[in-house]
Amino acid sequence: MNRYNRIRSIQGSVTAPRGFIANGINCGLRKERPDIGLLFSLTPCVAAGAFTRNLVKAAPVRFCMKNLANPIHAVFVNSRIANACTGPRGYQDTVSISRMVSDLLGIKPQNVLVASTGIIGRFLDMRKIGAGLKELAPGLNRKGNRNMARAILTTDTKEKEIAVEFRIKGKKVKLGGIAKGSGMIAPDMATLLAFLTSDIKIEKKILQKIFSEVISRTFNAITIDGDMSTNDTALILCNGQAGNDTLTAKDKKDLAVFRDHLYYVLNDLSVKLVKDGEGVTRFVRLHVVHAADRSQAGAIGFKIANSPLVKTAFYGSDANWGRILGAAGAAGVHFNPEKVEVRFGPYTLCRKGAPVTFSEGLLKKYLSRGEIDVTIDLHQGKESFVIYTSDLTEDYIRINAHYRS
Amino acid sequence: MNRYNRIRSIQGSVTAPRGFIANGINCGLRKERPDIGLLFSLTPCVAAGAFTRNLVKAAPVRFCMKNLANPIHAVFVNSRIANACTGPRGYQDTVSISRMVSDLLGIKPQNVLVASTGIIGRFLDMRKIGAGLKELAPGLNRKGNRNMARAILTTDTKEKEIAVEFRIKGKKVKLGGIAKGSGMIAPDMATLLAFLTSDIKIEKKILQKIFSEVISRTFNAITIDGDMSTNDTALILCNGQAGNDTLTAKDKKDLAVFRDHLYYVLNDLSVKLVKDGEGVTRFVRLHVVHAADRSQAGAIGFKIANSPLVKTAFYGSDANWGRILGAAGAAGVHFNPEKVEVRFGPYTLCRKGAPVTFSEGLLKKYLSRGEIDVTIDLHQGKESFVIYTSDLTEDYIRINAHYRS
Repeated sequence: MNRYNRIRSIQGSVTAPRGFIANGINCGLRKERPDIGLLFSLTPCVAAGAFTRNLVKAAPVRFCMKNLANPIHAVFVNSRIANACTGPRGYQDTVSISRMVSDLLGIKPQNVLVASTGIIGRFLDMRKIGAGLKELAPGLNRKGNRNMARAILTTDTKEKEIAVEFRIKGKKVKLGGIAKGSGMIAPDMATLLAFLTSDIKIEKKILQKIFSEVISRTFNAITIDGDMSTNDTALILCNGQAGNDTLTAKDKKDLAVFRDHLYYVLNDLSVKLVKDGEGVTRFVRLHVVHAADRSQAGAIGFKIANSPLVKTAFYGSDANWGRILGAAGAAGVHFNPEKVEVRFGPYTLCRKGAPVTFSEGLLKKYLSRGEIDVTIDLHQGKESFVIYTSDLTEDYIRINAHYRS
Repeated sequence: MNRYNRIRSIQGSVTAPRGFIANGINCGLRKERPDIGLLFSLTPCVAAGAFTRNLVKAAPVRFCMKNLANPIHAVFVNSRIANACTGPRGYQDTVSISRMVSDLLGIKPQNVLVASTGIIGRFLDMRKIGAGLKELAPGLNRKGNRNMARAILTTDTKEKEIAVEFRIKGKKVKLGGIAKGSGMIAPDMATLLAFLTSDIKIEKKILQKIFSEVISRTFNAITIDGDMSTNDTALILCNGQAGNDTLTAKDKKDLAVFRDHLYYVLNDLSVKLVKDGEGVTRFVRLHVVHAADRSQAGAIGFKIANSPLVKTAFYGSDANWGRILGAAGAAGVHFNPEKVEVRFGPYTLCRKGAPVTFSEGLLKKYLSRGEIDVTIDLHQGKESFVIYTSDLTEDYIRINAHYRS
């Protein structure tokens, strides 16, 4: 991963690339914080997306999946109400939003994408959104990224933004992104809400390919509570204003540079998402190594990362490696328990599936850090999988026990 | 289920049937409470069992699976240390226990079963167990059931016991059982620790068949936190002292009576297990109805029952039916979200996958009860699946954050 060390981030996020403007305001869906946001590109964009694999998909998710094939000009987003499990009326509301947005921006409804997050099973207040849009659209500006980043938050405690600059085919290009997460981040496909922009010029097909590939190693390798949302949506919009010759599948070297920077951005947002997870006090990098293949490693890793018993032990700084092995064994994939090694940071706690003497004091100290590394070595093959996850705390319970009120 | 209304329980548990004696004492594995227990039948028993499907199986589980084919005379159990992930030395410890027990009781090691529960990844203190056995075995008695029921507990707050009496082929027979659970009760096959005894005379093959069948509707239909233990063990021992003609596969009518009483006993223990789950404040009966088949219903039911977001909403008496639909959609099985109905007790909250107006006040009141019924109606087929589960509370976190200390 050394090649990522050379990458440096720049100021801003989704409006850092040329030709993008944004805004976020409060329209009354929630009390004070911005609750609707808008992202606009002065020229039409090539877009790619990744969406929840949940069978129950919110109306805006189904709308995006349909419209993604078109050139994209704008993305509208609201928090507080997810517009999921709202039947035909909910879908019609999403369509109405795309019409209102296109009317205000002088574009077509099919060039608008819509995303929502919040409470499932409630209808949007279309009156408030309609009124809010009349303030939101005229206020679009180059510095609106922070307000848009705020408008997408739910139980998150802070905005998540990043941007990078690099060269493609001799031209300076920029890539920026914002995201929200908090609970329910176990995507298995897509995740949370994330919006990325770039002024790079790139073919749609290769953009989707690289986006999906990098997401599988970032947003699809994080988990807070194992729940999978009805609304997960990640979008990337590229408007080509950097003026580079169009990147195509043939441009191996430039594509590698783009892929590295996209990884850097999505990885950065992933870390921020997990660290700002509901009630989180520990950031855990879980490494499943020497697996037979990536799917075995992933299955074992997610079973461990989502185990309430493992997560509460992290919270208690308890070196309970037995729970890790117990969770691994319940993953439904084969491995040899008598070969397994478990390490917490530099400390080995289990070798050949049996205990190794270790200093409880040192382990307690290590596990009390904000960031910990846990390795489960299967001693079987050559593949590995890294998952970012968190502990499970009383605050998670408190935040989620009364979410709708 | 009306036929279960006629069944009445009697005093006692595993020593209620003729010819069984038991005992439980403290040998120093834990501070005060009994930590080793012994169950003995004066005559050899036909036995059946159900064990964890976890790939990582504790030494005593592997030992039981091997010895179950033999006539069984005695079951030894210890709490505090699970003897899981302990390699060859751990297995040898289990073998040693079976030898010490058989020496003391004048039987053979292969007629002894061993079960353990507690911390994973630690070795048993064989000196303490050896010394304790010398007090435990001579103390076996007809009233030792309560002490044995105590000796198997970990974070449970109370003993779980039951016995019933009924007639088979004109003879009075008895069936009794004890169990421990608390967290980590999501077996998918077997469960927790449970020991059942009967003086019925029955063929081994049909006993195992009925036992597995009834377990699939009881111990395998409950979940607290979705974690699957390395030590789950459920055993039934029948010594034939009731003197009935041996029950065989041909005795349809008598087998139905036996099955009903076994269901009654295992269902009773299941309810007690969930109600005494770690930090539990809500007992939830989750009904998945009108499913295409039982496996679809079970997959959807367990995904809902294990969702941290659903469980925290139960805790907060929050009628968040959207989370239920969201969890169902992530179960990995197909259904039509636009047909689904969700009911909390008598109240319908969602019809055709969309919200129905309901009184928040009435729902809050209903959900504040200790026991609640939740129904998800798929409107697809004729099968159903009932799961007993619980809420997820701050106390669960507290109990599990420092389990090893």
